[in-house]
Amino acid sequence: MRKVRIGALVSGGGTNLQSVLDAIGRGEINGEVVVVISDRPEAYALERARKHGIKAVHMDRKKCGTGIQAELEGMQVDVVVLAGFLTILDRDFVKAYEGRIINIHPSLIPAFCGKGFYGEKVHRAAVEYGVKVSGATVHFVDEGTDSGPIILQAAVAVAGDDTAETLAAKVLEIEHKLLPEAVRLYCSGSLRIEGRIVRISGEGC
Amino acid sequence: MRKVRIGALVSGGGTNLQSVLDAIGRGEINGEVVVVISDRPEAYALERARKHGIKAVHMDRKKCGTGIQAELEGMQVDVVVLAGFLTILDRDFVKAYEGRIINIHPSLIPAFCGKGFYGEKVHRAAVEYGVKVSGATVHFVDEGTDSGPIILQAAVAVAGDDTAETLAAKVLEIEHKLLPEAVRLYCSGSLRIEGRIVRISGEGC
Repeated sequence: MRKVRIGALVSGGGTNLQSVLDAIGRGEINGEVVVVISDRPEAYALERARKHGIKAVHMDRKKCGTGIQAELEGMQVDVVVLAGFLTILDRDFVKAYEGRIINIHPSLIPAFCGKGFYGEKVHRAAVEYGVKVSGATVHFVDEGTDSGPIILQAAVAVAGDDTAETLAAKVLEIEHKLLPEAVRLYCSGSLRIEGRIVRISGEGC
Repeated sequence: MRKVRIGALVSGGGTNLQSVLDAIGRGEINGEVVVVISDRPEAYALERARKHGIKAVHMDRKKCGTGIQAELEGMQVDVVVLAGFLTILDRDFVKAYEGRIINIHPSLIPAFCGKGFYGEKVHRAAVEYGVKVSGATVHFVDEGTDSGPIILQAAVAVAGDDTAETLAAKVLEIEHKLLPEAVRLYCSGSLRIEGRIVRISGEGC
């Protein structure tokens, strides 16, 4: 079975990317990361890519629309994984890769998502709202912000003494499980999108 | 220690009320339900109250503002539990009982809550959105709809073959644990409201 070619877009340290690389290393995913693109030249994710012998590309924010698409097409990428990518994607790019872009968001969508909710802001909003449960969501990207069909979600308890920082750490732990699992399901052909619903083979109808 | 006097407002079958009565019967709650009020004369919750020797009152929707308050004051109620009550409460009533009205909502607030989200509609919205996690929330009532400080939340997994009906059944199961637990915490003086945050004694700072 031909391996699925994965392209990853990352703005930061890339621990979510690492979780996918680790799962690939353990032979759990029928795929390989062929290129890592960052909108920040100093992103440690680029260093991670180089360490794994993966092509690492810095792409200026202004070129993020057509530039990213050209790079991914050049590398014959099948599926794009956003592992903490902060630049808004070009609409045409999203259309071209419809149903083939996977994003992870650090809350239980539709709570604490959409414009302005990224990174630590998500967790600060959750703590200030006073929720007792938060979590993470892996979803396909559509033309909205955090609005595409949901692949996987998992919950974490918010404790009375949690701050945005401690909650972020708890949620990151489950992100590191959810993202590789979603990529695994995608690469084994187990995901089917029906409107807003993502069907997972072997799970219900 | 004096028992906390509980008044319950219910529109339907009252299984959530029953879960509180059962917990009281097991000696878990330092409180007693002294009156059950329904806006529907045929609500089975009224029958449940009579079976337990509790005062059962039908209150016409039009009298729900001042009528309910007079009844609760007459019975010297300390805390009001909304166990599936569909009439919007009078603003003055909510003010008078600030921090003393507990509601249960069948989703993880702030998802699938607010105006128009009640009963089965909540679960239909969750299933149609395609979430993989839902849950229930117990919260204090403020002047908004489902917007008050959150006491407890718990999550349930949404399966691929879940319908609004099957999801409702799953969530109801956790409602029957969350509501008595929240009432228990209230009646033991373990809850403290700080702005939007509900602090629970013995849990963090």
